[in-house]
Amino acid sequence: MTDNKVGTYNFVAEPFHVDFTGRLTMGVLGNHLLNCAGFHAADRGFGIAELNENHYTWVLSRLAIELEDMPRQYEPFSIETWVENVYRLFTDRNFAILNKEGKPVGYARSVWAMISMETRKPADLLTLHGGSITGYVCDKECPISKPGRIKVTTDMPVEVYETRYSDIDINGHVNSIKYIEHILDLFPMETFKEKCIRRFEMAYVAESYYGDTLSFYREEVAPGEYDIEVRKNGTEVVVRSKVILK
Amino acid sequence: MTDNKVGTYNFVAEPFHVDFTGRLTMGVLGNHLLNCAGFHAADRGFGIAELNENHYTWVLSRLAIELEDMPRQYEPFSIETWVENVYRLFTDRNFAILNKEGKPVGYARSVWAMISMETRKPADLLTLHGGSITGYVCDKECPISKPGRIKVTTDMPVEVYETRYSDIDINGHVNSIKYIEHILDLFPMETFKEKCIRRFEMAYVAESYYGDTLSFYREEVAPGEYDIEVRKNGTEVVVRSKVILK
Repeated sequence: MTDNKVGTYNFVAEPFHVDFTGRLTMGVLGNHLLNCAGFHAADRGFGIAELNENHYTWVLSRLAIELEDMPRQYEPFSIETWVENVYRLFTDRNFAILNKEGKPVGYARSVWAMISMETRKPADLLTLHGGSITGYVCDKECPISKPGRIKVTTDMPVEVYETRYSDIDINGHVNSIKYIEHILDLFPMETFKEKCIRRFEMAYVAESYYGDTLSFYREEVAPGEYDIEVRKNGTEVVVRSKVILK
Repeated sequence: MTDNKVGTYNFVAEPFHVDFTGRLTMGVLGNHLLNCAGFHAADRGFGIAELNENHYTWVLSRLAIELEDMPRQYEPFSIETWVENVYRLFTDRNFAILNKEGKPVGYARSVWAMISMETRKPADLLTLHGGSITGYVCDKECPISKPGRIKVTTDMPVEVYETRYSDIDINGHVNSIKYIEHILDLFPMETFKEKCIRRFEMAYVAESYYGDTLSFYREEVAPGEYDIEVRKNGTEVVVRSKVILK
């Protein structure tokens, strides 16, 4: 039974997808995780294409990734994904990242809502396809903590950025992966010479659009632990993030 | 014989790899082309891994892409690649981009040199593996013109950008694909609402590094035709590009 509940997808760390240390970038890993979520859902009848026909879509709310290691340039690796919980308004989807020997080197947790494309209001997941999504819930272990609270109090941005053509996805929003890249670009390259990202969290709070001015606020809340908040046009919070370096 | 000379690789246009129009971005297409070049060379014994063992590596000098159409989100497409010419210091590698029906929707040309990783000096391609690379030369048609001359005379940059962590590849250089993204980000999003990129050229002249300040100079040399030059730290030309919109 678990076989059909867990989807496994194979990748190779491409040359333009690794950073200066030769390790896969967090943005590319995030992209692969979200693609795997899409493949897994589509194969089970609740993918974006099927939802869109009924004017619904998936919206990513939270993502937390914890890693001991990252695939190196040209290394094959794989990603497993499964549904941990389905609630009325949210579903928890987990991931394992396996190295070329098939050993887990990291895990991720994500939280998704389904919304109406017309009203942008959340839909009831328990009535989707007669509740069939609950049949895929799987108790495979995901030994990392759930996304936590991220709190930034500073009012001094470390960066101000106006969104551009390459930031914008087919929905007209700044895409979820671009935020990851912009957030990690707040750190000087030297940071990643000495340290690796042990845990990375994203909370997607609101959408931003082409031409919006994004302000990035960052606080070191513990040694090597950074909380980040991105606000658009001086006020509204768009995303929050936590970066833990080790 | 042609079968073994032409490599074919299959892709799907992923959600985070399309722009706001739902079409594959030029940066992602460029990434796929360069990956295909790598796969094709590696399969024939003159890939980066083999060259690196002997302290040589491939360096991309020119890239020209001409397109009638771009794959849309979730559409499968494929890329063919083959070697057109081998000279002493350069080799010409061409590409065809095929849509989901297998019809060519675009072509690309690239020019590569092989250099010594120690001296950074060009190596003689005709003596590589006893000249075996010449055995892969193939006369398949590539009906687009060769990379041309790009000339920018203005001294007023349209953009100034300091390179960041996410720009830098495993060799410590700003990666070839990031230049493509930065160059297209010089255009307002509205440009790509009305027009598509019909032809795109890159000339890679010199390397830039973390913390370099890149200045982007752009001139409209004919209606819808833009020549772009990127200089680092106020002086040295790093890349030149041509964008033709239709």
